[in-house]
Amino acid sequence: MLTYSFSDIGSDSLYHHLYQCIKKDILSGVLPAGTKLPSKRTFAKNLGVSNITVENAYGQLQAEGYIYSIPKKGFYVQEISDLTPSTGTVSKQQTAYASPHRQFAADIVSNQMNPEQFPFSVWSKLSRETLHELHEELMETPPWGGIRELRDAICSQLKEFRNMEVAPEQVIVGAGTEYLYGLLIQLLGRDKIYAVENPGYHKIAKIYESYQVPCRYISMGNDGMDLQKLADSGAHVAHISPSHHFPTGIVMPIGARYELLGWATREKGRYIIEDDYDSEFRLAGKPIPTLQSIDMSERVIYMNTFTKSLSSTIRISYMVLPKHLLEQFAERLSFYSCTVSNFEQYTLARFIEDGYFEKHINRMRTHYRRIRDELLEAIKNSPLASRCEISEEDAGLHFLLRVDTNLSDAALLQKAKQAEIRLSCLSEYYHETTEDIPAHTLVINYSGLTSEEIPRVVALLTECVGE
Amino acid sequence: MLTYSFSDIGSDSLYHHLYQCIKKDILSGVLPAGTKLPSKRTFAKNLGVSNITVENAYGQLQAEGYIYSIPKKGFYVQEISDLTPSTGTVSKQQTAYASPHRQFAADIVSNQMNPEQFPFSVWSKLSRETLHELHEELMETPPWGGIRELRDAICSQLKEFRNMEVAPEQVIVGAGTEYLYGLLIQLLGRDKIYAVENPGYHKIAKIYESYQVPCRYISMGNDGMDLQKLADSGAHVAHISPSHHFPTGIVMPIGARYELLGWATREKGRYIIEDDYDSEFRLAGKPIPTLQSIDMSERVIYMNTFTKSLSSTIRISYMVLPKHLLEQFAERLSFYSCTVSNFEQYTLARFIEDGYFEKHINRMRTHYRRIRDELLEAIKNSPLASRCEISEEDAGLHFLLRVDTNLSDAALLQKAKQAEIRLSCLSEYYHETTEDIPAHTLVINYSGLTSEEIPRVVALLTECVGE
Repeated sequence: MLTYSFSDIGSDSLYHHLYQCIKKDILSGVLPAGTKLPSKRTFAKNLGVSNITVENAYGQLQAEGYIYSIPKKGFYVQEISDLTPSTGTVSKQQTAYASPHRQFAADIVSNQMNPEQFPFSVWSKLSRETLHELHEELMETPPWGGIRELRDAICSQLKEFRNMEVAPEQVIVGAGTEYLYGLLIQLLGRDKIYAVENPGYHKIAKIYESYQVPCRYISMGNDGMDLQKLADSGAHVAHISPSHHFPTGIVMPIGARYELLGWATREKGRYIIEDDYDSEFRLAGKPIPTLQSIDMSERVIYMNTFTKSLSSTIRISYMVLPKHLLEQFAERLSFYSCTVSNFEQYTLARFIEDGYFEKHINRMRTHYRRIRDELLEAIKNSPLASRCEISEEDAGLHFLLRVDTNLSDAALLQKAKQAEIRLSCLSEYYHETTEDIPAHTLVINYSGLTSEEIPRVVALLTECVGE
Repeated sequence: MLTYSFSDIGSDSLYHHLYQCIKKDILSGVLPAGTKLPSKRTFAKNLGVSNITVENAYGQLQAEGYIYSIPKKGFYVQEISDLTPSTGTVSKQQTAYASPHRQFAADIVSNQMNPEQFPFSVWSKLSRETLHELHEELMETPPWGGIRELRDAICSQLKEFRNMEVAPEQVIVGAGTEYLYGLLIQLLGRDKIYAVENPGYHKIAKIYESYQVPCRYISMGNDGMDLQKLADSGAHVAHISPSHHFPTGIVMPIGARYELLGWATREKGRYIIEDDYDSEFRLAGKPIPTLQSIDMSERVIYMNTFTKSLSSTIRISYMVLPKHLLEQFAERLSFYSCTVSNFEQYTLARFIEDGYFEKHINRMRTHYRRIRDELLEAIKNSPLASRCEISEEDAGLHFLLRVDTNLSDAALLQKAKQAEIRLSCLSEYYHETTEDIPAHTLVINYSGLTSEEIPRVVALLTECVGE
């Protein structure tokens, strides 16, 4: 039975002393993950303290994520370094409360922005101005699609960056693309079949599953989603990222775009959700027109987000609806309030209008290009060089690193976990039923890396991959 | 055919001149709502200007909501003073873009806060501090339930205001209760039957309908939702606001609360969604314990929002999940990112922690009490006094005003529209199939009123009600 001395606790309270003793034992491994702690009553009796003391100590430990409770069973020690892999199980109580990406020596999965890169002083200045000048506007219930100023700014930005002609009323602002996907399911209907890219972001398929709508996984060809398979699938809605597919990096060529539009117009009720999530960060080559800009039959719903271009912690995304869908939206879904607060909408509108967004994107593009080049150079000069092949390094914020190894992907990930490097394999992004999943291919997201981290990342990668 | 002179436009551009001419005619009523404008080509030819000039003028008018287009048909004049009634049809293009509550002489429906009441200087100071001090934290992906600091602060606040003991990991923060309802449907399941209050907020039922889950309208008795009817309905989930029902103002007494909990525990899979949306603003009487605080069987999901207590334009709400549901949430829905940006989460956390929230609530309570008293006094001293009866004036931010009139509710609302007063009748909050809907009862929401407006509001009310 666990025991602690209370003889020398000075001015510390009993509960706090107990809390610290247990915490120390958890952190040092004396109490390993999964250990069941004594029941409050027994423990209190044993230690000669009141039930309340133990209860408070357990409460504090639980609040801080060191232990968790299972109803009617008791308290258990949390896996402290337990992490959320991109696909799988979670340490439930902990991820509900603690920040997910804290505990790595290096992270080449996260999209989290390096704090040095965020334009804090400008954002601060604009927030201050907004709060100072716009009292009435800030308190006024915004239109359901978002404030006029932001939607105007988004339209100018779409014109400038993507050569898209969009009327501001077509723009619907929401708190993240995940939220907007949910609105789209309500708009297009649960009787539709949705097609997603395989491999692809798990979240998109998860959202469709969570809404219990039928979802088909369509393989990727060399030109993006396999259009024959799409046609054969019976799907009504194709959810794709033609500008830059994650994780393969494929950019859909213009011919395939027209063919896809052909598919969409062939039958009534077919739509394309064009997810343009990181198009701002194409680092080389000429951009290809968006599907939205060449769509003459109102079949394309365009989506983009500031969570990629500004910070994942600013929850502002938007979609551009074709006019007939906008009317349906107004009729059936405009009762939903806009999910982004006025404060941030006005601040972001000014950020775009005053030219800071463009400056920021240009600066980030230069920054990301430099980080990518340094990382590629470091890999080239490392023992990894002779055993790996790099592809898709021109677009977006990741590339693929195919390594020559006998290790399975599971073993690679296990070694990465031990080395405290957050890593992902291309195979993880495939739907489980897929045949011919490519192995030994790492997805290297460098958007959160700093120059200083690169040597360590490459060393850790070499260590993981090495026998 | 519409025509304008371009002879005397000075340094104005052709398109801008044309835009102003048309706008003037729309505003003055020369071009009434619904008028089809000439096609671009014909109009251009007729005016002797280029197609581009007409196109730009139409584009500007459309962007500003004066005209709208129907694909392949042309451009039409928008209904400028068209408004969104709480139940019905909308002028689609316009509400997508313009602010919904602008055009009234008086508004006793809106929850919009008077800008004078929002603590701008404190909020500004805390935003500034947050942006200055928390660079790393602001860029760090938050846990899916929201940042730790805010959830801790919410727990202290629940303890203080509602005497509720809640562990911070049970608190899930989201961008508005509407968004959280959607998560709850995904959590509890689409196979459940949901019961809503009748009368009640239309939005709640609309969300269930939009998710295509079965929804039952349960009448209100004197003690809140009729529990016999609830039991007979076959519903699994009861969505109620026991602390203060909108619009009837009913507060569910403690006995009925226990009975409701009895209903919920009687069968597995039954839940109560306790919507405590304006409990901070009880103006008289002793608060009754929340269902959550007396629930020992994990049947109650508690919800509250800062959109009522702070501003409807700050989109931060939260729910408190019982522990077994929290685990299910973690397993199935924790892939969703938190929908509130870190910036506002940290600012709000400080606002609560530093005691400003409590101060704000106290100040608002005093303010609302004063507005209510002045409004009641003004009614008492008006011709209305002899023809009306007031009830439910002690809780929340509205009361009921039953008037003695021969006018139907539809006629009352029509007169209100003519008088430019935004008004709602109790009957509007009933499900259409209900029998015995009380007539001639106005729901007076005074939260957005100022002292100065009260005489005018009472005069307009008198005018509407008078023969």
